[in-house]
Amino acid sequence: MSAEDFVGRVNARCETFLQRRREEILSISPEGAPLADSLLALTSGGKKLRPVLAWIGWRAAVSARSGGGPELPASEASAAELLGVALELFQAAALVHDDVIDRSDVRRGQPSTHKRFEALHREHAYSGDAPHFGTTGAVLSGDLALGWAGQAFAEAQQQSSGAPETLDAARRVFQQMHTEVITGQYLDVLAEVGPPAPSEAEAVARARNVLRFKAAKYSSEYPVVLGCALGGGGEDLRRNLGAASLPVGEAFQLRDDLLGVFGDPEVTGKPVGDDLREGKRTELIAYGLFRSPEAAAAELAGMLGNPDLSDDDVSRAREILVSSGAVAEVERSIETLMDQSRQELDGLKQLGVAAEVLEDFADVSRRLVSRLS
Amino acid sequence: MSAEDFVGRVNARCETFLQRRREEILSISPEGAPLADSLLALTSGGKKLRPVLAWIGWRAAVSARSGGGPELPASEASAAELLGVALELFQAAALVHDDVIDRSDVRRGQPSTHKRFEALHREHAYSGDAPHFGTTGAVLSGDLALGWAGQAFAEAQQQSSGAPETLDAARRVFQQMHTEVITGQYLDVLAEVGPPAPSEAEAVARARNVLRFKAAKYSSEYPVVLGCALGGGGEDLRRNLGAASLPVGEAFQLRDDLLGVFGDPEVTGKPVGDDLREGKRTELIAYGLFRSPEAAAAELAGMLGNPDLSDDDVSRAREILVSSGAVAEVERSIETLMDQSRQELDGLKQLGVAAEVLEDFADVSRRLVSRLS
Repeated sequence: MSAEDFVGRVNARCETFLQRRREEILSISPEGAPLADSLLALTSGGKKLRPVLAWIGWRAAVSARSGGGPELPASEASAAELLGVALELFQAAALVHDDVIDRSDVRRGQPSTHKRFEALHREHAYSGDAPHFGTTGAVLSGDLALGWAGQAFAEAQQQSSGAPETLDAARRVFQQMHTEVITGQYLDVLAEVGPPAPSEAEAVARARNVLRFKAAKYSSEYPVVLGCALGGGGEDLRRNLGAASLPVGEAFQLRDDLLGVFGDPEVTGKPVGDDLREGKRTELIAYGLFRSPEAAAAELAGMLGNPDLSDDDVSRAREILVSSGAVAEVERSIETLMDQSRQELDGLKQLGVAAEVLEDFADVSRRLVSRLS
Repeated sequence: MSAEDFVGRVNARCETFLQRRREEILSISPEGAPLADSLLALTSGGKKLRPVLAWIGWRAAVSARSGGGPELPASEASAAELLGVALELFQAAALVHDDVIDRSDVRRGQPSTHKRFEALHREHAYSGDAPHFGTTGAVLSGDLALGWAGQAFAEAQQQSSGAPETLDAARRVFQQMHTEVITGQYLDVLAEVGPPAPSEAEAVARARNVLRFKAAKYSSEYPVVLGCALGGGGEDLRRNLGAASLPVGEAFQLRDDLLGVFGDPEVTGKPVGDDLREGKRTELIAYGLFRSPEAAAAELAGMLGNPDLSDDDVSRAREILVSSGAVAEVERSIETLMDQSRQELDGLKQLGVAAEVLEDFADVSRRLVSRLS
């Protein structure tokens, strides 16, 4: 099976899973349908990066065990799909609540969830405050996604072949992921509203901490580790796979920071310069602020968090970030991280992971880091 | 062990559990501490009704199995405490997000979670919008509580003695509870913003549906059923216990509706007439609207959802609800529900549940329904 085939199966499985949850809601009241519908709409898009990494981790475990090949037996492929669904729903929950927090009106080129519920309020001429109804719908729909992620994960666990202690390790990773991502979201907001960091080193360290806990770990390390654990992979293999994946996740997020300022809105599906308007405190911005001449640094600082930036302002911010060397520095960090990841591949070979699986991993890593959207 | 002793142990266990999660957050960044602190503050209060019902369900299962008595063996008591923690954290998540949705500023006589984060914003002189920061903190702290509830439940499951299929049934109940409560919260909001029901029957049916799915089931039926399942109780026992508990939960919530208008704020910890200001569409209100003379009904309808009601307005609403017979009707419904519950007790005796456990159940039921706060 190719990665594309697997993604197709995860998409189908995710839709079936959500349709069943939708039926459960309808049995309470047909009026509850929009809660499930908003998640069906959101999960029909996206790159399915996390399911693919989980699938690679699972195949790594299967190939490393005696007599296993790089392909998953049918029963395990089905459990891996469910793990993919769990990761997609977990991400959906994070995105839906994050968009409320960041007041982002667009997600994957479509109205974000709170905007959908706001529109529903207007359409039905409900009484009261439409934006608050939007927030309500998004809070509740994210809550459902969070619980359903746990449900899909438990079902994947149940169908998997790992030993009890490996399954238990997987459960602990899943729960750690939850605590870390939500704490990371909070730190991200604090970085925007709190006093600025006193030095470049401190600003970069804070930004890396947010990037790691809010995004990188759950986007790369934990999906492979969870796949590996549910596939019955031992502790060494899980640790080594995680160590190869985390740098890719961090590089992926640094690319995201670059796209948040330099991305083409036609390709990213997000308004141009959205990260600047939100005042996101990324490493890119940290370098830009500390490596620019005083006047340019003040100009850049003044733009952060201003929701009314014009396209000209965004162009000016881009100039400052390029001429300060901030962009080049972030590109260098991406390369360093990719080198770190590659250095882990030897250990994986020695643990018996099939060459085909490692090639798939390298291929996915490259695609993630060179992406345009 | 008495119910009070068990509650003391659940309180201690909940605090230990949350302190460990707090340590995990501190290892990411000390700045994340308020997320755990807000949950420590919230869960230190409350009646611990759900843990007590879970404990009764667990003891019912133990007493019904061959050779079991009405007391829990030590290892099972520990698992029952963890289930109690899971139910408390699940409720905490529901309350925190519900207070954001209902814009309730007070919970258990203390500032609600979004108000705590709003105050933190002002205290630290963070930049930007303090109320939005409050919402952010509450959304994230509720998300943590939701995930941690799942974690405590999984740990309880792991420590319990039920057969795999019973544990699996418990997991499905836990997940159903999640879907139902959140859908119920959404329906509650819809009832406030949507067009009024065209008839008394329809208004009462809608209100009962919200009451059941948003509150009653997770407050009564599911706690006993979950305790019973993790205690190894079979399907018949679970069904019968659930049937005895759900009416108590509904009666408890009807009492809550009465207290929401007639409660003494000194005792309830909530501002007087809060339900009227929120525009909550309870059965009490449904009877009041449909059984009052036209002018009084219009007056009552005009007060619903008005955040600026004076104490005199609230007194007037109380008069209307009493003179229309709405209060008496709700009191009759409470009695009918309690009768329904009592009718289920015979079946439980026949399934071998110890008399002592049934007495505890009847005692808790009475306290729940006659409560003043």
